Amino acid sequence: MRHLLSPLDLSVEETDQLLSLASDIEKNRSKYAHVCDGKKLATLFFEPSTRTRLSFESAMLSLGGSVLGVSSADSSSAAKGESVSDTIRVISCYADICAMRHPKEGSAYVAASKSSIPVINAGDGGHQHPTQTLTDLLTIKSLKGHLGDMTVGLCGDLKFGRTVHSLIHALVRYPGIRFVLISPPELKVPDYIKENVLDANHIPYRETTNLDDAMEELDILYMTRVQRERFFNEEDYIRMKDCYILDQEKMKLAKPDMFVLHPLPRVNEISVEVDDDPRAAYFKQAQYGVYVRMALIMTLLEVEKPC
Amino acid sequence: MRHLLSPLDLSVEETDQLLSLASDIEKNRSKYAHVCDGKKLATLFFEPSTRTRLSFESAMLSLGGSVLGVSSADSSSAAKGESVSDTIRVISCYADICAMRHPKEGSAYVAASKSSIPVINAGDGGHQHPTQTLTDLLTIKSLKGHLGDMTVGLCGDLKFGRTVHSLIHALVRYPGIRFVLISPPELKVPDYIKENVLDANHIPYRETTNLDDAMEELDILYMTRVQRERFFNEEDYIRMKDCYILDQEKMKLAKPDMFVLHPLPRVNEISVEVDDDPRAAYFKQAQYGVYVRMALIMTLLEVEKPC
Amino acid sequence: MRHLLSPLDLSVEETDQLLSLASDIEKNRSKYAHVCDGKKLATLFFEPSTRTRLSFESAMLSLGGSVLGVSSADSSSAAKGESVSDTIRVISCYADICAMRHPKEGSAYVAASKSSIPVINAGDGGHQHPTQTLTDLLTIKSLKGHLGDMTVGLCGDLKFGRTVHSLIHALVRYPGIRFVLISPPELKVPDYIKENVLDANHIPYRETTNLDDAMEELDILYMTRVQRERFFNEEDYIRMKDCYILDQEKMKLAKPDMFVLHPLPRVNEISVEVDDDPRAAYFKQAQYGVYVRMALIMTLLEVEKPC
Repeated sequence: MRHLLSPLDLSVEETDQLLSLASDIEKNRSKYAHVCDGKKLATLFFEPSTRTRLSFESAMLSLGGSVLGVSSADSSSAAKGESVSDTIRVISCYADICAMRHPKEGSAYVAASKSSIPVINAGDGGHQHPTQTLTDLLTIKSLKGHLGDMTVGLCGDLKFGRTVHSLIHALVRYPGIRFVLISPPELKVPDYIKENVLDANHIPYRETTNLDDAMEELDILYMTRVQRERFFNEEDYIRMKDCYILDQEKMKLAKPDMFVLHPLPRVNEISVEVDDDPRAAYFKQAQYGVYVRMALIMTLLEVEKPC
Repeated sequence: MRHLLSPLDLSVEETDQLLSLASDIEKNRSKYAHVCDGKKLATLFFEPSTRTRLSFESAMLSLGGSVLGVSSADSSSAAKGESVSDTIRVISCYADICAMRHPKEGSAYVAASKSSIPVINAGDGGHQHPTQTLTDLLTIKSLKGHLGDMTVGLCGDLKFGRTVHSLIHALVRYPGIRFVLISPPELKVPDYIKENVLDANHIPYRETTNLDDAMEELDILYMTRVQRERFFNEEDYIRMKDCYILDQEKMKLAKPDMFVLHPLPRVNEISVEVDDDPRAAYFKQAQYGVYVRMALIMTLLEVEKPC
Repeated sequence: MRHLLSPLDLSVEETDQLLSLASDIEKNRSKYAHVCDGKKLATLFFEPSTRTRLSFESAMLSLGGSVLGVSSADSSSAAKGESVSDTIRVISCYADICAMRHPKEGSAYVAASKSSIPVINAGDGGHQHPTQTLTDLLTIKSLKGHLGDMTVGLCGDLKFGRTVHSLIHALVRYPGIRFVLISPPELKVPDYIKENVLDANHIPYRETTNLDDAMEELDILYMTRVQRERFFNEEDYIRMKDCYILDQEKMKLAKPDMFVLHPLPRVNEISVEVDDDPRAAYFKQAQYGVYVRMALIMTLLEVEKPC
């Protein structure tokens, strides 16, 4: 039995298979409408996350399966002091597969060790969120036609943003990747990632504080939110935040086939005027998130691909 | 693509078609059990409303579709500062149709403008609640056999009650409607409705503070709650509230084919002894609410009526 | 129309039929995958209980039906002051069967009296929880092959624990049952149960404060939690709690075919080292809970057993 706990649980080859399946699902949705008939997904969200939860639910329903679950810690047995180990053993009696979000780091690993059904880590305490990474990969591959040989700009909070860290880990496995790391000095990619992931894999990259300068060389721009509370003082925040707001003025500097991604929700780091630009791909990304989760559920449940 | 944002979005002809479809659904439920197979309804209730949410969910499930959703603002991306525009664009990737309740007036309109799936306004900030009005129309038509040529009593809080205002707007489109407006002086129908809707359409009506006096002339009595907090002082409330409590004593004054409606929940404005009177139609009304929502979902999804 | 409000609503013969159906479901799950197609279960949990709610939902989904519901009091009409009587009459329009948990004793009875669909009491204010008792009976019968002629140890809080009281009521209806009642002196089975249930039915039992002493004579050990707040003072709690923690040391004293049950969630009254013992049956019990609820839903909906 397989789980998905970390973005790197799947080998490059397995990831490629998964993304291929997701692409086939996108092109032939009706073919997959009943492959999970009679299967049940449990969505255990001990920390609320509407977007991620609904994406999983939409995926399972689109495969013909059904869904049961918990959408907040309040209405859960966790409130009565039950351990994650016990919870997952009970849920194993109720469902065929489980997507779990938990505020405590490592919870998904503990759950998987005691589970008799596949566990998908849907986020554990800021640590891992592997289906976001798979969503990002599918989006890039679908838009660009391939996953290597491109310059990827990562912009915003590169210090604390877990989606950015996971994406770096995932992309360095493909040939010809180059990064431009765009952030305020306070929010740069941590050294341990630069050393152990980028340098160790001989990945070229450059760091800059200026989004404008980077625009024209990018094939993908991955935007993230710069949270006010990350700054030491209000003046720094106000001085810098505008540099990291993507607007049509900045988009004019970019290639015609450059695409903008964002894990959402956005607050103001992408101006709404960009939404109508054909290169704005962040809402398509939400759609790809459903396809990749459909492929993942099928893979972990070992459901045959229909012919 | 059509949305339903206001009770008057549908023309009289379209409304009649919808009510006819709802009546056919009532008579032939099994015929409709699979017309929405594979379709997904998102119920986005950023303000809780069990009754309305469950009515939509029951409707979609009865058509063979499935449901995903949010039942409170707490467990939603809204808590992270996401705009309604962004939320609906993401939900458009997850579902085929959306029923949305939001505390802010105009939210449903904003959502519809950005949505790529039909949006049903399930209530926005005390402003509009069109499926309640459609429910009321279906109930009246089913009980009386037609929608015009009757005297309709509206009783209770006629000043703030949005269901009453919407029902007035909807009924004046049918010929031969006459209203009796029964309320305390403080809670009368606002002048702008009397002038712009009743007078402008030459609709006969009379106003009274006395429910007893009105009973015998009514074909329909639409009861609403008089909320204590609407009164300036406690004595006024206590003095007047009993005049607006419907009991069997008052029912004796009514015609044998008069029907009582109420949007529910009721608190004490209809005595429970009235529940067993065959003219009490407020629980049937809840059932009609499911049928009309089934018809609405089919209509907005452009699902063919089965033969 | 039948409801299930109290564990004793079903006669011994009806209970046997239900348990037989549940056993057949366990052995032939796929045979039952569509027997409730098109049927809707409403789960009305005005008091949260993830485990019980999800067990009902899993049961209905496994029968091919669908689910709608409320998982907390906050998001419910109850917050607007609606009576249980009115709520169930509306829910009767939305669903075919209802499982209800409510903090107020007697709520399920009130609901059933006004309902036009079968009502299952899923817990009302510490009073009754009949599907737990049916789960316990199915677990014992499945593990031991029969329900009478055995010594059942009940351990922990025997004073306030409603599951224990219900289980006593249910088991005395089978021949050859003997109880060992294991608890601190403060938490003994109340006299009215000893007199009216045990003595009145000539059921042999003994009381002890020592779990170790009881182990070797038991065929079933039913563990429950000893809540700290039940004790008058902290010293008493600390002095006694260890006597009621089941560990491998104590398991060595038990028969090889003795089974341990627990209604869950557990906190620390069963050491996790016991989980791997083949006699630990508390997670299997959760699985039996789904089967028995499947059988119950079928029975109350009068669904034909498939051939």
